[in-house]
Amino acid sequence: MLDQRIALDVMGGDLAPDATLNGALALCGESNSRALDPRRVLLVGDESLIRAKLTALGAEHRIGPNGFAIQHASEVIGMAESPAAALRAKPDSSIAGCVGAVKRGLAGAVVSMGNTGAVVGACTLGLGTLEGVRRPAIAVTLSLTGRPVTLLDMGANVAAKPQDLLQFAAMGAVYARDCLGVAEPRVGLLNIGSEASKGTDLLKEAHPLFTAQGARLNFVGNVEGNDIFHSAADVVVTDGFTGNVVLKLLEGFSGFMLQLVLQELRSHRAEWTQDALTKVRRQIDYAEYGGALLLGVNGIVVKGHGRSDANAVANAIHVAARALDARVNQHIVAGLRAQ
Amino acid sequence: MLDQRIALDVMGGDLAPDATLNGALALCGESNSRALDPRRVLLVGDESLIRAKLTALGAEHRIGPNGFAIQHASEVIGMAESPAAALRAKPDSSIAGCVGAVKRGLAGAVVSMGNTGAVVGACTLGLGTLEGVRRPAIAVTLSLTGRPVTLLDMGANVAAKPQDLLQFAAMGAVYARDCLGVAEPRVGLLNIGSEASKGTDLLKEAHPLFTAQGARLNFVGNVEGNDIFHSAADVVVTDGFTGNVVLKLLEGFSGFMLQLVLQELRSHRAEWTQDALTKVRRQIDYAEYGGALLLGVNGIVVKGHGRSDANAVANAIHVAARALDARVNQHIVAGLRAQ
Repeated sequence: MLDQRIALDVMGGDLAPDATLNGALALCGESNSRALDPRRVLLVGDESLIRAKLTALGAEHRIGPNGFAIQHASEVIGMAESPAAALRAKPDSSIAGCVGAVKRGLAGAVVSMGNTGAVVGACTLGLGTLEGVRRPAIAVTLSLTGRPVTLLDMGANVAAKPQDLLQFAAMGAVYARDCLGVAEPRVGLLNIGSEASKGTDLLKEAHPLFTAQGARLNFVGNVEGNDIFHSAADVVVTDGFTGNVVLKLLEGFSGFMLQLVLQELRSHRAEWTQDALTKVRRQIDYAEYGGALLLGVNGIVVKGHGRSDANAVANAIHVAARALDARVNQHIVAGLRAQ
Repeated sequence: MLDQRIALDVMGGDLAPDATLNGALALCGESNSRALDPRRVLLVGDESLIRAKLTALGAEHRIGPNGFAIQHASEVIGMAESPAAALRAKPDSSIAGCVGAVKRGLAGAVVSMGNTGAVVGACTLGLGTLEGVRRPAIAVTLSLTGRPVTLLDMGANVAAKPQDLLQFAAMGAVYARDCLGVAEPRVGLLNIGSEASKGTDLLKEAHPLFTAQGARLNFVGNVEGNDIFHSAADVVVTDGFTGNVVLKLLEGFSGFMLQLVLQELRSHRAEWTQDALTKVRRQIDYAEYGGALLLGVNGIVVKGHGRSDANAVANAIHVAARALDARVNQHIVAGLRAQ
């Protein structure tokens, strides 16, 4: 039973410890199928702070043999601290306490909202990898179309080898099946084209490895960034560098888009219409900027989107004219001479 | 004058030739500072088709010494064709015609909405690179915050060397200054952290090269995916693989988000409120799925977002419990044994 417990890093995260404690209280107080037995939660952090907070919330009775357990940790790793240095300098941090609990068989899971690098470092070093696992991977699940898509590695590693990607696929597929209820998870390799010959050397080497798995892996081939939004695969495999870029981009973009929508909503209180959405679309559509430029060739090249309408074409031509007028290429040559 | 002309690939793009011709007509018919002298446009494509279309639009008089010129091309490369094969098989394609026009001094710019690979291939091979340029790069400009951000390389190359990235920076800075009116463009390297030691070997080697440019380059250091939406840099440099993934992701995501917003808009016609936005936010927020999992370590590790609120914490714990219950790690080990 003890190894079915979850060590919660009460001190980790921007809104800790309030959010962490309230989260634990909420989940264990639910009256639905998701409700968790509080005996499965081990609160790891400053014991007196935890007790004081729970008392203030009128929940001190939730601690004890039939409720939460507490494991004291005297130190906290801040969100902005350098992970490796902080882990060395603070051996009694709450995240280290969580890891220690798993190592000693007092819990089987760690939950932390804290410093990502510290969590990954502490867990990887402290827990070691599973038998047969070459490298851990960070998996993130999005549910954009109602059907969950799991992406990994989102940044546990910087570089990856083809064999690592294959393991990420296997791990992601197991997770999707076990925890997301996807019967036969379709696995895709994040790439810049669907053909097996596309992409980096890493991907070109990984593709045949994936194919060779045959029935062991429901490999649907390469998927592109936009395919994530069409549920083209249930598990999308990538290296940790690309994955982390993707993750931060999605975070930044979603926040940004919502802000845009909100602005429009406010300014059009009464007559909020399709027009406002069109305005949002225009603001995020690079076709409005005339498409893509192929810089570095001996001539100006503007590549518009295949779906360009007349307005986008006009913009593309305008961009080309402007580039010619501005003598961009001459300036590029001069600039490179100066490098 | 001739080399200030723009060769327009009339046949390229999903909506060609209507969109391309209408685009040219629109830009050259405008009565503002953006208006273009039609003598600067060379229409490249099927001459009889172009004449018929312009006649149908009542614009046949726009062809001639004081209007558009036409250069016949008998072939068209389709959007889905394999670029290299299509370029070989169709020497008289409209895109090849555009390139030929620049080579012969009849135009200085190419504008195409066609097959990206074919455009990049035809231009790179046909036009060659500018003096000093090692590799061309595709630059895309977004204007998310009202201030344009130029990203490159978005897919002209798959791999890059540090020196290539430095050249991309120089080319992007020139473009931002010349064509976007950014006085001293701030250049950033797309990375997964701000420290110089972060990222792939490519980026670790590129960073000191960028720094060594001193005043020749307004280098602001590494930027992350979400920084694009805060105007942290005017020019964001990345390798073509990462750039292409980013581009397709942004495209897919923006279309997807707008669809979500539209759905909400329709279902809440009268009482469209903040609630609907919250629903949109929830749908795209991976915190709803409990955060990120560190797969492959000897224990379940859920890394929630630092900004997690109690709800997100509850979700994260729930995910950990579910992973334990489902014996994910045991299954991963078994799955890897079978590989």
